[in-house]
Amino acid sequence: MIKELTSRRFFTAAECNAQKEMPLTTLVQRLIEVATEHANAIDIGYSRLCQYGCTWVLSRVTLEIDRMPGVNEYYSLTTWVENVTRLYSERCFEMTDDGGNVMGRARTMWIAINVESRHPADLTMIEGMGEAVNHDKVCDVVRCPKPRVVKEPDGEDCYRFRTCDIDFNRHVNSTRYVELILDHWPVDFFDANRVSMFDISYHHEALFGQDATVRCKTGDDGVHHIEIKGDDATFVLATLEVVSR
Amino acid sequence: MIKELTSRRFFTAAECNAQKEMPLTTLVQRLIEVATEHANAIDIGYSRLCQYGCTWVLSRVTLEIDRMPGVNEYYSLTTWVENVTRLYSERCFEMTDDGGNVMGRARTMWIAINVESRHPADLTMIEGMGEAVNHDKVCDVVRCPKPRVVKEPDGEDCYRFRTCDIDFNRHVNSTRYVELILDHWPVDFFDANRVSMFDISYHHEALFGQDATVRCKTGDDGVHHIEIKGDDATFVLATLEVVSR
Repeated sequence: MIKELTSRRFFTAAECNAQKEMPLTTLVQRLIEVATEHANAIDIGYSRLCQYGCTWVLSRVTLEIDRMPGVNEYYSLTTWVENVTRLYSERCFEMTDDGGNVMGRARTMWIAINVESRHPADLTMIEGMGEAVNHDKVCDVVRCPKPRVVKEPDGEDCYRFRTCDIDFNRHVNSTRYVELILDHWPVDFFDANRVSMFDISYHHEALFGQDATVRCKTGDDGVHHIEIKGDDATFVLATLEVVSR
Repeated sequence: MIKELTSRRFFTAAECNAQKEMPLTTLVQRLIEVATEHANAIDIGYSRLCQYGCTWVLSRVTLEIDRMPGVNEYYSLTTWVENVTRLYSERCFEMTDDGGNVMGRARTMWIAINVESRHPADLTMIEGMGEAVNHDKVCDVVRCPKPRVVKEPDGEDCYRFRTCDIDFNRHVNSTRYVELILDHWPVDFFDANRVSMFDISYHHEALFGQDATVRCKTGDDGVHHIEIKGDDATFVLATLEVVSR
């Protein structure tokens, strides 16, 4: 059993955001890719879950970022499974530069849902899941408090989910919500500030054609709280912290 | 001089669109990445152009697609420079599966612009550019006729460019326009049809906060013509052909 997997990547100019760094959305996408690669390598991936009529769904991502990769920089993502319960599996990540310095850390939470019923499956039923846990590696990411819905937002944006927002699970893909959140601020906000912490939890799946409202409120401590809300349900809750550049 | 470069990639479930295939946007992104990788390898990349106060800008992409990569499939992208003139360089691509079967072909056109003036630079001024051309390899992609603006569209969508749409050149990134085009159709259109040909030419750079209208017209031959238009200029012209699945 391969208890951890490291993938070294090259970051190109073409992938950069306006600040000439890796966008937060790309980082989330890369974490999902590396998670998928590791899950496949230890045979708890997409194909395997298919046999159980299930699919992996990302439930939560917490990121702590010291520095993002820049143009023409190599970076490595290391991932391992921190724990598995009946309801969810936690998978952690460390991003390092070629000098071995830690650039960021992440903890993600995954559930398996039944493709037909859309209900969560019991992960302990899936053979080999328990053995995947790496007891030797510690994840330093602080566990965020349970996020709350946003009351009396400072600002609201509206969006209708479209064709390119939909993934293979036929619901809105995980990174599109991250974009909707970042898009709440103008580009010069991120010229002046960089994201130091980001926490997003996925509550209810949004489907093609559904309307969403992005509701934001900044606390007295400067922490930004975001809710992406549909007509009948909360799709996503998130917390964003920035520091001046 | 490395006259061609091949990059073998793995396509994960997490990258899929609703049809469980590589999205057209991802293919365009991958072409840009592999182009960047090759340009860096032969020292005509981003860093080199910086020395001349210039940056690469994608001017046109023409794609012919027989089949897109599916879940957990390896695919390879091979790229080479077809020709270089004072004003532009043409770079071609072939996408193959692990059996060596060609899945798709592309021709792209690139210009170098001066970062300050935003005007095109003379490519023949850049040392080594002429030697990059691979005279031994033929690109089969048919040269599309010059695209025209869309008069009397069948349908229009509106969009305002936002933070995550902006790339390191401080203008809207190349793939966002592709998304805007695909988003003109509902998800079930692509359940029934697959893209067989796509041509997009970038005419005027769109900036943060600008409004765009996506104007589409389907010809009598079933070919879709698309214009993304700002208040004062045409940002993008595109042609899309689909075939029934």
